[in-house]
Amino acid sequence: MKILLIGATGTIGSNVYDRLQQNHEIIRAGRNGADVQVDITDETSIRHMYEHTGNVDAVINASGSAGFAQLTEMTPDKNETAVNSKLKGQINLVLLGLPYVTDGGSFTLTSGVMMDDPIPQGASAAMANGGIRSFVTSAAIEMPRGIRINNVSPSLLEESSERIGHLFAGFQPVPGDRVAMAYQKSVEGSQTGQIYKVY
Amino acid sequence: MKILLIGATGTIGSNVYDRLQQNHEIIRAGRNGADVQVDITDETSIRHMYEHTGNVDAVINASGSAGFAQLTEMTPDKNETAVNSKLKGQINLVLLGLPYVTDGGSFTLTSGVMMDDPIPQGASAAMANGGIRSFVTSAAIEMPRGIRINNVSPSLLEESSERIGHLFAGFQPVPGDRVAMAYQKSVEGSQTGQIYKVY
Repeated sequence: MKILLIGATGTIGSNVYDRLQQNHEIIRAGRNGADVQVDITDETSIRHMYEHTGNVDAVINASGSAGFAQLTEMTPDKNETAVNSKLKGQINLVLLGLPYVTDGGSFTLTSGVMMDDPIPQGASAAMANGGIRSFVTSAAIEMPRGIRINNVSPSLLEESSERIGHLFAGFQPVPGDRVAMAYQKSVEGSQTGQIYKVY
Repeated sequence: MKILLIGATGTIGSNVYDRLQQNHEIIRAGRNGADVQVDITDETSIRHMYEHTGNVDAVINASGSAGFAQLTEMTPDKNETAVNSKLKGQINLVLLGLPYVTDGGSFTLTSGVMMDDPIPQGASAAMANGGIRSFVTSAAIEMPRGIRINNVSPSLLEESSERIGHLFAGFQPVPGDRVAMAYQKSVEGSQTGQIYKVY
């Protein structure tokens, strides 16, 4: 398959790349250093990315940011990062990418454990993750041409433990390659509307 | 209690008003015709509302819009209605309202059945509902001064069946007053971080 992987150089994305590149042609997209540059908070940038790639069999998004702050210090402005990136960025990858995905192809988005199992400073990220989950569940019943859509909800990755593990007290970190398997299931399997939780 | 009810003249809001006005002082807010005017998509309008009401014991939001369209006709632009109103509007009511809610007070937001049980044309609304659910779950663990936060997820209301029932094939409509009871439980009870599903 020809797979467009956005966020290919991130912690999740690089694990997904390693797992899928053996059997597929992967186009690595991201903010810098990849095959195609894209800023998912910018609709025009997303449109240019798809014009550049042309048709693909699968779109995987492993990118998306959110602002972290204690609730009493969270502001409408700080909440915009998650709204524009992790939430609208991912949804716009679907809305603008539909014409470029081949019949029977797939989208795989990324939510995250915080939507179910909240952490301090994580309300804005949780919002975006929960929004993605319900968007995917709903979009799946209306996808044209047999296109599928799923989301992977990873817990804290082992590879990220040193950097952000202090925010996830008592969470069992999961290996990046285990998370990558969920993306593989979404792309190579036949399910749709699923949340693959790797907790 | 002194309760600020936003969306007081809507189908849900009027049922909540009828149930709670017997034992509480209700300030009815909304886009028009109520005690206080507010547009929840406008941060300045929300700030003015709270400056006008001063401290309250509970904030209930029963307002919020979303655009409905088939997924293949949904655009980033059409998705903005749900993002700005049902999602960010409700979240900003919390972020900007926290200083005005008394110790041990509460926020009650509104999500909806579509986040769990999707309907055609509902992906944007589902996104907003799912975002609210996870925001509430997460915000609850960080609320200051014993303030609580819950959300009510209603199914199609009996009162709305004639108007929008065709979108909810096979859904069991629920009476408005039954939905209002969930808001009463949130305000008068002691729970926090809950999703009250009235399906």
